Amino acid sequence: TLFKIAAIPGDGIGVDITEAAKQVLDKLAEVNGTFRFEYTTFDWSSKAYKARGWYMQDDWEAQLKTHDAIYFGAVGWPDVPDHISLWQMILPIRQVMNQYVNVRPTRILRGTTPPLAQLQKTPQDLDWIIIRENSEGEYAGQGGTTHGHTANAIATEVAIFTRVGIERITRFAFETAKSRPRKKLTMVTKSNAQRHGMVLWDKVFFEVAKEYDGVVEYDKMLVDAMTVRMVDHPESMDCIVATNLHADILSDLAAALAGSIGIAPSSNLDPTRSCPSMFEPIHGSAPDIAGKGIANPVGAFWSAAEMVRWLGKGELDAVADQFMEAIENVTGKPDTRTRDMGGSANTMQVTEAVCREIENV
Amino acid sequence: TLFKIAAIPGDGIGVDITEAAKQVLDKLAEVNGTFRFEYTTFDWSSKAYKARGWYMQDDWEAQLKTHDAIYFGAVGWPDVPDHISLWQMILPIRQVMNQYVNVRPTRILRGTTPPLAQLQKTPQDLDWIIIRENSEGEYAGQGGTTHGHTANAIATEVAIFTRVGIERITRFAFETAKSRPRKKLTMVTKSNAQRHGMVLWDKVFFEVAKEYDGVVEYDKMLVDAMTVRMVDHPESMDCIVATNLHADILSDLAAALAGSIGIAPSSNLDPTRSCPSMFEPIHGSAPDIAGKGIANPVGAFWSAAEMVRWLGKGELDAVADQFMEAIENVTGKPDTRTRDMGGSANTMQVTEAVCREIENV
Ligand SMILES: CC(C)[C@H](C(=O)O)[C@@H](O)C(=O)O
Ligand SMILES: CC(C)[C@H](C(=O)O)[C@@H](O)C(=O)O
Repeated sequence: TLFKIAAIPGDGIGVDITEAAKQVLDKLAEVNGTFRFEYTTFDWSSKAYKARGWYMQDDWEAQLKTHDAIYFGAVGWPDVPDHISLWQMILPIRQVMNQYVNVRPTRILRGTTPPLAQLQKTPQDLDWIIIRENSEGEYAGQGGTTHGHTANAIATEVAIFTRVGIERITRFAFETAKSRPRKKLTMVTKSNAQRHGMVLWDKVFFEVAKEYDGVVEYDKMLVDAMTVRMVDHPESMDCIVATNLHADILSDLAAALAGSIGIAPSSNLDPTRSCPSMFEPIHGSAPDIAGKGIANPVGAFWSAAEMVRWLGKGELDAVADQFMEAIENVTGKPDTRTRDMGGSANTMQVTEAVCREIENV
Repeated sequence: TLFKIAAIPGDGIGVDITEAAKQVLDKLAEVNGTFRFEYTTFDWSSKAYKARGWYMQDDWEAQLKTHDAIYFGAVGWPDVPDHISLWQMILPIRQVMNQYVNVRPTRILRGTTPPLAQLQKTPQDLDWIIIRENSEGEYAGQGGTTHGHTANAIATEVAIFTRVGIERITRFAFETAKSRPRKKLTMVTKSNAQRHGMVLWDKVFFEVAKEYDGVVEYDKMLVDAMTVRMVDHPESMDCIVATNLHADILSDLAAALAGSIGIAPSSNLDPTRSCPSMFEPIHGSAPDIAGKGIANPVGAFWSAAEMVRWLGKGELDAVADQFMEAIENVTGKPDTRTRDMGGSANTMQVTEAVCREIENV
């Protein structure tokens, strides 16, 4: 099988880790022999934007749609205001490509030292899948500014929640929970202080939940209290479903608690498969270490593994599992970890080590 | 001096800890001899609401305004939807009483075991004041629902940010930072994904910041990345200013990282002193332990200490400091800590221990 991948390295370390991911994916294909990847690389970056005034061509939708999946590095660079770079690229892709689910698995990879004392003893206590609503809510982009240049300036952010949007993400979350050994789902909102959209979220969630009574165990948390539970009782959770903003915050916290933001992956999925899904590490472009060749490529590899799983539609799960095994064999050894994981290896050394493991497992 | 306190115990453990706080405050007054407290207790609770259909009387504003400060326990009970209990009491009080600042100091009290391994070695590394915008933003209450009972239901949450609102909280935050030894301020938004109100926030913040160049050191974080920094580099922060929702989330996380949500205080301030300010622990009504007499009263005591500081307008700072010293002498001893702090003392035992310390320090 040929998988056509739209590669968008983007900014900063996005470039380094996309290159690393391609190298490892090609090795995986070579060793496996039943599939291969063909990449179209899009120079949609902040540097290009500064030079020519745009991130993506007008026909970007059509261009992306000829691919089976999108591999995304990172976006954001100090000389372009973030709300411009994001609203001209990553957010339109997520929204227009119907990627209404964002899946963020978090666990403590072998060799990682998590910061919580409890987890240093029992790393298996943190094993979560955060399911993020990815198409509406606080990221709907609506709102505006009035009297902007005066002392009376007022600006709004309008979060939009629809029954359709809440129902589909809830259903996806329950199906994910159902497929896991522990079959638990925790839903997060802030429906005590936010009394319109969040209340609708709660209502639709509990309606859908009825269908899973006796099959999936579920509960509800307020987002503030959820951070406390993540710190104090990581073992009490399995799958987590939350709004676009809440899950954004909680998934960064989750990655930090799991030991490094450099390892966490993020899959932007169109479950209907009418558009290509997009795979990206959750870390950013990291201007401070960009171009130094020292970025941790593990988040990029884990994202690539999730891409393989998605592309395989169930047929490549074993390959994705082997890929993860190869990654953990590498993070498990002190001399093939990057600095953020307590080692001193650079991007290329980690990449080559993973390629060697792929040949061996 | 006579300080007239409006006491609102509210729900669940709010009742236990308000009683404990009054006992300790009276002891403080007795030992000191220069001031005393007079309490009006308001039965504004979910239980009362169920019985009579309302939380607060129509003339609640006038009733509260005859007091020098408000002491608040907790609100929220399973048989009343949270958005009703909150929007009929705590949120109107904060907003109508002009309490546009919410101050949430967090540090690791003596005797606390914080969950992060790093902080177990150097507890002094976590010493933050979170300054929360308390009057607008995501808690403005605006928004609504359309087609609510149909498959096309859509609901919005409208966050409102005004230049006036942003400017006054920013200024308060800079003044607070300026008064602290380290003189650092970290500002948090999500202005990359939220491109209207949050962008105004950034703009106004940096305008005000110019006045503090060379006096206060400041930087900016995105709320998701901020959770990572709080876990990985607690020592890198001092004062933190954020929107109503972001600071709500970050302050719960802060309390968890400091070792217990049961110890953290929250001061809702009207810096113009035209209305009474309100003091409350950040924990909730804790239905699971309510009425058992085992709630941790330390957050309530710390809140009471902040109330004394505020009422004293600079004259009672030494008294408030002694009060905190008394509290920490108690948390410092294993047999006078509650369960959440690794001990087995009940609310009354901790309360009596603090009273004894107040007599001795
Ligand atoms: C880059 C930014 C728009 C993004 C988000 O907020 O969704 C990032 O933080 C993420 O989590 O993928
Ligand atoms: C009870 C609730 C409205 C409140 C809030 O969200 O502000 C609480 O979480 C807090 O932090 O004081």
